[in-house]
Amino acid sequence: MKDFHSTQSSAPIHMIDLILKKRDGGALDERALEFIARGAASGEIALEQLAAWLMAAWIRGLNRDEARALTIAMRDSGVKFDPSRLGKRTVDKHSTGGVGDKTSFLIAPLAAACGVAVPMISGRALGHTGGTLDKLESIPGFRTALSLDEFEAVIKKVGASIVSQTPALVPADRVLYALRDRTGTVECPGLICASILSKKLSAGLDALVLDVKTGSGAFMSRIEDAEFLAALMVATAEAAGTRTVALMTDMSQPLGVAAGNWIEIAESLQLLRGERPAEIEDCRELSLILAGWMVHVAGAAKSAEEGYAAAEKALMDGRALRIFEEMIAAQGGDVSIFKAPEKFHSPGATRVLEAWESGFVSRMDTTMLGWAVQRTGAGREKAGEPVDGHAGILFHKRYGARVEKGEVFATIYATNDSKLDEPVELIKRAIQFSAEKPAAIPLVSKIITKETAEKELALRN
Amino acid sequence: MKDFHSTQSSAPIHMIDLILKKRDGGALDERALEFIARGAASGEIALEQLAAWLMAAWIRGLNRDEARALTIAMRDSGVKFDPSRLGKRTVDKHSTGGVGDKTSFLIAPLAAACGVAVPMISGRALGHTGGTLDKLESIPGFRTALSLDEFEAVIKKVGASIVSQTPALVPADRVLYALRDRTGTVECPGLICASILSKKLSAGLDALVLDVKTGSGAFMSRIEDAEFLAALMVATAEAAGTRTVALMTDMSQPLGVAAGNWIEIAESLQLLRGERPAEIEDCRELSLILAGWMVHVAGAAKSAEEGYAAAEKALMDGRALRIFEEMIAAQGGDVSIFKAPEKFHSPGATRVLEAWESGFVSRMDTTMLGWAVQRTGAGREKAGEPVDGHAGILFHKRYGARVEKGEVFATIYATNDSKLDEPVELIKRAIQFSAEKPAAIPLVSKIITKETAEKELALRN
Repeated sequence: MKDFHSTQSSAPIHMIDLILKKRDGGALDERALEFIARGAASGEIALEQLAAWLMAAWIRGLNRDEARALTIAMRDSGVKFDPSRLGKRTVDKHSTGGVGDKTSFLIAPLAAACGVAVPMISGRALGHTGGTLDKLESIPGFRTALSLDEFEAVIKKVGASIVSQTPALVPADRVLYALRDRTGTVECPGLICASILSKKLSAGLDALVLDVKTGSGAFMSRIEDAEFLAALMVATAEAAGTRTVALMTDMSQPLGVAAGNWIEIAESLQLLRGERPAEIEDCRELSLILAGWMVHVAGAAKSAEEGYAAAEKALMDGRALRIFEEMIAAQGGDVSIFKAPEKFHSPGATRVLEAWESGFVSRMDTTMLGWAVQRTGAGREKAGEPVDGHAGILFHKRYGARVEKGEVFATIYATNDSKLDEPVELIKRAIQFSAEKPAAIPLVSKIITKETAEKELALRN
Repeated sequence: MKDFHSTQSSAPIHMIDLILKKRDGGALDERALEFIARGAASGEIALEQLAAWLMAAWIRGLNRDEARALTIAMRDSGVKFDPSRLGKRTVDKHSTGGVGDKTSFLIAPLAAACGVAVPMISGRALGHTGGTLDKLESIPGFRTALSLDEFEAVIKKVGASIVSQTPALVPADRVLYALRDRTGTVECPGLICASILSKKLSAGLDALVLDVKTGSGAFMSRIEDAEFLAALMVATAEAAGTRTVALMTDMSQPLGVAAGNWIEIAESLQLLRGERPAEIEDCRELSLILAGWMVHVAGAAKSAEEGYAAAEKALMDGRALRIFEEMIAAQGGDVSIFKAPEKFHSPGATRVLEAWESGFVSRMDTTMLGWAVQRTGAGREKAGEPVDGHAGILFHKRYGARVEKGEVFATIYATNDSKLDEPVELIKRAIQFSAEKPAAIPLVSKIITKETAEKELALRN
C-alpha cells in the first residue's frame, strides 16, 4: 500500500520493508542484515516474517555483500568462543556432509600434533548424512555438550576438542536453520554460506579448511553448484578475516568401509594406529591432505605438502592416536574400549549381504547408501530422534572393484531384525555392476583458494 | 534434500512439497490448494509455512486455474450464507476501495427496490481508504455483527443488509489476509482475487458487480494492473458460477464531497432524498450505473440501461430511502437522527481551509487526501484501532474547478485540535493548481464482462 511517508537512513528499521526490498530483487545492507540476525536470535521478528524473507532470498538470491554481511551478523548474534588464551593459531575443518566421512577423528589430532589448536564445533546426523557428534557419542561417557570454559580447557590440555553448538552460540542460525528446513529455503548458496560460516567462525578461527563434497553422495548434485558454494564460502570467510581454502573432494562412494557410528570410530582407530588396509586408504589419504592444508593455512607449515608430511609423521609415530585418546578421555569418554573395538561392538542384528551379481562396481548412489545406513538405526530422519551407536554398514567392495556373485559385499548392523531388509533393498538399488572396469575418480578434484575463488565467482556473475 | 521415496497422487500431502513446487515455478492443483485453505483455516499449517508459500506465490504468480481453485477452496473453508430461502436472485457489489466512496448506501436499497436481494458483507477502513462498516457504525445503535440468521431475516424483511464478516465465514481468508499484510505479499493478482471473491462468494451470490478503482486514489496505481485484476476476478467468479461484471471507475478525486464516517451517511441521505447538488452528482451517477448493472446481471433487467432507469425511478420516488431507513432500523440504528443530519454531527474540532492559491484544480493525489481523512481520526492505520464517527473532510472544490485564493476549499472535522494540522498539510501537498482547465476524466472508463475478460487475460499471457 502506498504511504506518504518518506524513509530516511536514520529511520527505525521495519522488517516488512526489508521483506519488500528483497521480494523486489533489491539487496539489503549490513544494518538491515544485522537487524534480521538479531531479531531472529531474540525472537523479536516473527517466524512468518523471517520465512517470507527467506523465500524471497531463495528466489532472488543473496549477492556477495549480503552473504558476507549476513555471515558476520549471524556469527555475532550470540556469545563467541575466545581463543586468545590458547596461545596458538586456531584452525578447523568443515565438510558439507557425506557417508562414512570420519576424517574429523583423524584431522583434529593430526593438526593438534602439528602445533595448531583445533576448536571444532560439530553437527549431528540428519537424513542420508552421518554426524560427527553421534559417532563420538557411541563411546560410553563421552560428552559433546561442553561449556565454552570446558572447551577451552580441553583444547589447552590436548590441542583439540570436538563439541556441540551451545544454545548461546549463533542463536540466529538455530532459528533460521530450523525455519529453512520447514519453509523450503535450504538450497540457497548465500544462506548455506552464512549458516555454515557463522557457526564455524563463532569459534574465533584464524583459518578454515572446507571439504566440499561432489558426486552421488553430495548435498549438491551439480558440480557447478558445489564449486560456486565453495568459492562463495572461501571469499566470504576471507572477507570476515579467516584464512580459508576449499577442497572439492569425491563422495561418489562412502569414504572408507564403515558408515555408521561406533564402526566409524573403530575404523578411525585402525588408521590412527598406523594400519593401512587398501580399502580404507582413501580415508587415510583425504585426512592427511585436509590436515596438511589445515596446518598450512594456519601458518604452521610453508605449504600444504609440508603440512601433509608433518601430519603423516604425527600419524605414524603415534602422536595423533595419543592426542585422540587424551581428547576422548578429557571429554569423559571410556577409552578402555579402544583396546578391542570389535568386542565393544554389539549390534542388535547383523546380516551379511553377498554380491547378487558379478562385475565391476561401476556406480554407487551414495545418497541412497546413506539412507540405507540411516535405516539401520544409525541415523535420523528428523532432528531430535535418537540414534543407535552400534548400527551401520560396512561396504567391503569399493567403486571400481571386481566382484564375484556370492562374495561378501556388505555387512549390515541394525538395531533389530526388522531394520535389516530395507537397507539391503536400498543397497541393491544403489549399486550398478558393469563388465568393464570404470574410470577412476580423483579424490580431490579442485582446490579453491582466496585467489581462485574470485575467478570462480566472476565466472558466474 | 534428496530422498529416495517416490511420490504418488494418492499420497498424503505435505505442505513442504507444495512450497517447493511453487518456489520452483510450478502450479498447484485443486487438491493442493484445498489443503492449504483448510490448513490455514484450522491452524494445522504453521504460519511460517504459509508465509513461505505466499512469498513464492507472489514472486512466481498464480495462474488462472490456481486463482480459481484457491478462490473456491477459501470460499468453502468455513460456513457459508445460504440465500435459497430468500426466494430472490442475490447480487452484491465490491469496490477495491476509495476515498469518499459511499455508493454502497445507495446501491443496496436501489437494487433491493428493483426486486433483487443484496446480502452485503463489508469491510472496515484501513490506511487511506474508508470502510463501509465504520461509516454505518456512526449511526447510534447500528449493529454490523449479525448472525447469519439475523442477516437472512433483515434481507427477507427489507431486501438488503450490510454486515461484517463473521468469524465462521471464510476463516482461511482471515488468516491469509493478516499474514499477507505482515509478509509483504499483498499486491499479487491471484491472491487479491481469491481474497476478495472468497469473501463475496461465501454469501452464495447469483451475481456480482466489481467496482475497480483507477486513478490517484486507487489501490493499484497502474491502470494495466487494475484491468488485469478486474479481468481475473470476472473470469474467476464466472468460473465459480457467479455472473459477474467489472466497471473500471475513476478515483482520481474523492467521490462526492464528504469523506469520513457520519458525513458520508449524511451525503448519502441527500442523494436518497432526491437532492442533486452538482458537486455530488458523480456519486449519484456512479451509484445508479452500479445499481443498474447489479439489477441487470442478477437477471431483473434486460440491460444495464434498463437497470439504471429502474434504479433511478426507485431513487426519485423515495423507495430507496425507505428501504435504507428500514435496513438501518432493522439492524438497531436510530433513524431519528436522519431528520437533521447536521444537528447530529458533533465533531471535536473544525477548521475551514481556504484556497491557498488561485487556479484550476488540475491534480488531486487522492491517496494522500485519503491519508488526510485518516489523520482526522476518521480512519485507522492498523486493524483494530477505533475510529471517530464524526471526523472527516468535506472537499468542496472538485477536479477541474476554478478556485480563487481565499475561497473555502475544504472543511476538516477532527477528533481534537491536535488532529487538524496534519490533514491541512496533506491536503496542500495533494492538490495542484494550473492556469488551464484540465481535461475531464470519464467516470467509467471500461466495462469488463465475461467475454471481454478472456480477451484482457489473453493479452497479458
